[in-house]
Amino acid sequence: MKTVIIGIDLGGTNTQGAAATLDGVIIRQSKIATRARLGSDTVIEDLAKLILDLAKGQPIKAVGLGVPGLLDLNAGNCRFSCNLGWQDVPIAGDLSRRIDAPVYIDNDVRAAALGEWSRGRAQGCNDFIYLSVGTGIGSGIVIDGRLLRGPGWSAGEVGHMVLDPLGPACACGNRGCLETLASATAIAREGRAAAAANPSSLLNELAAEQDLDSALVFRAAARGDAAAGQVVDTAMAWLGQGIANLVTIFNPSLVVIGGGVSLAGEQVLAPVRAQIARYTMPVQREMAQVAVSALADRAGVAGALELARRERF
Amino acid sequence: MKTVIIGIDLGGTNTQGAAATLDGVIIRQSKIATRARLGSDTVIEDLAKLILDLAKGQPIKAVGLGVPGLLDLNAGNCRFSCNLGWQDVPIAGDLSRRIDAPVYIDNDVRAAALGEWSRGRAQGCNDFIYLSVGTGIGSGIVIDGRLLRGPGWSAGEVGHMVLDPLGPACACGNRGCLETLASATAIAREGRAAAAANPSSLLNELAAEQDLDSALVFRAAARGDAAAGQVVDTAMAWLGQGIANLVTIFNPSLVVIGGGVSLAGEQVLAPVRAQIARYTMPVQREMAQVAVSALADRAGVAGALELARRERF
Repeated sequence: MKTVIIGIDLGGTNTQGAAATLDGVIIRQSKIATRARLGSDTVIEDLAKLILDLAKGQPIKAVGLGVPGLLDLNAGNCRFSCNLGWQDVPIAGDLSRRIDAPVYIDNDVRAAALGEWSRGRAQGCNDFIYLSVGTGIGSGIVIDGRLLRGPGWSAGEVGHMVLDPLGPACACGNRGCLETLASATAIAREGRAAAAANPSSLLNELAAEQDLDSALVFRAAARGDAAAGQVVDTAMAWLGQGIANLVTIFNPSLVVIGGGVSLAGEQVLAPVRAQIARYTMPVQREMAQVAVSALADRAGVAGALELARRERF
Repeated sequence: MKTVIIGIDLGGTNTQGAAATLDGVIIRQSKIATRARLGSDTVIEDLAKLILDLAKGQPIKAVGLGVPGLLDLNAGNCRFSCNLGWQDVPIAGDLSRRIDAPVYIDNDVRAAALGEWSRGRAQGCNDFIYLSVGTGIGSGIVIDGRLLRGPGWSAGEVGHMVLDPLGPACACGNRGCLETLASATAIAREGRAAAAANPSSLLNELAAEQDLDSALVFRAAARGDAAAGQVVDTAMAWLGQGIANLVTIFNPSLVVIGGGVSLAGEQVLAPVRAQIARYTMPVQREMAQVAVSALADRAGVAGALELARRERF
């Protein structure tokens, strides 16, 4: 029985996991619904079952776990998770006791950055920013070959960088945060407003068949719909400006965009590159490549495996 | 003859230097005018003379040199310096040959951050942001015990973070950079406009006796002048918001404000703290202390000595 490592990406809706050899070769994958409404004990029990299923009786050397929330990495606690409805859940210890193996946690977006670093777009790169643009916006920042965590383990919360003090209200209580201007949630919100204001917009036609989400807005914009185009242009201008600020601050050689919005590919990359070209210094813009994630929604599991492989922070 | 190390802070107007023992105890200090208009050869010759004067015949182990510009630390080049009027000056090599000792360069603001770290307000702190708020705004950022430099050695250029895309024009060609909203230059510019628009403002009375600079605006505001107060309030709100964004991104335990504007003390600290309290997450604002520099304009020399002491990056 060969020893395995396990990587888990705990999400608010779904949880993905993989078992791999100690070299990181994935041998089994699985996905379950996250039963967040039933409370943290149920979620942890489900995680334990998922892990033991993935291990299939093979000894577990270590588990890496990406958690969507603010963490205390020393204590192994989740201090706060909006997505899971958690406050002060000792997830690492509780889970470790149930499966009798060490559990290493990190923030889900930082874990995804580790995934892009070890197996994705950022392989071999020592200075990059991974930006997850989905329901919210978060980042994992690697500079000089190290993943920034910060003394309170909340470095990289770039979604709450304020870009427009008089802008739309954000869930965090402020206004004009990057997240409330450029996330999938923001694009869907503005798309719904544009559809209501423009009865002849393609947005309304498409929305008759499915939810008006950010992917639908990108699709309508790609087909030339003016109202949708304006929503995309505005959101991507803000995204690009936020990223330009990060390029100014960090001078990275690469920016990797992941999360649901990154699936729009060139519709995201072109305006982001334009804003970097406009808003950063020559020395910075010349070296700052921009790409979309190579792993898409598998970045989190890849990074969780890398967390387990490294076995410690 | 005991061996010494030398630290030099090369400024656009003045250059300061100190000689110290290998333990870093300062034994001599000196200051000269920077003859930037006479070209880089003259400046380098003046630097060599200053260094040899400071050494007074004692052998020089290493020289640390803070340079106000964009550098290539591998080549020892200054790629660009607006203050000095330099483009591609091989300063480290040229100077080293003249004094027959190794010369280690870094950006002047990063050097000042090293100074605050080794001898100033940030001693013993492994996660802090040093912000120089003077003619321009720059920073030196230490996270997880390391000074960020970035692959192009231009990490920390936070003065060009764009906070107000429709704001005043910046020397860099963009609009609404932190630097053009909150630097000493910005405060003086807005102070002059306020004086012109408000003939009865104390600003005009004070400006009859001396230049209307940022210090004068702070003084008029402290004495209750409404027009000056509004200039200070606006600039400090932007400064605080820029710093709040940095706290959101880095999660530091300390922010040290240096440069000329920091001499206004509480007039700077109070509004910056208020913006951090308003614009950052609890976990971040709880740990982010804010202080003004302990070394003022000696931070650069202290950091240059530290550069020399470490002898390498």
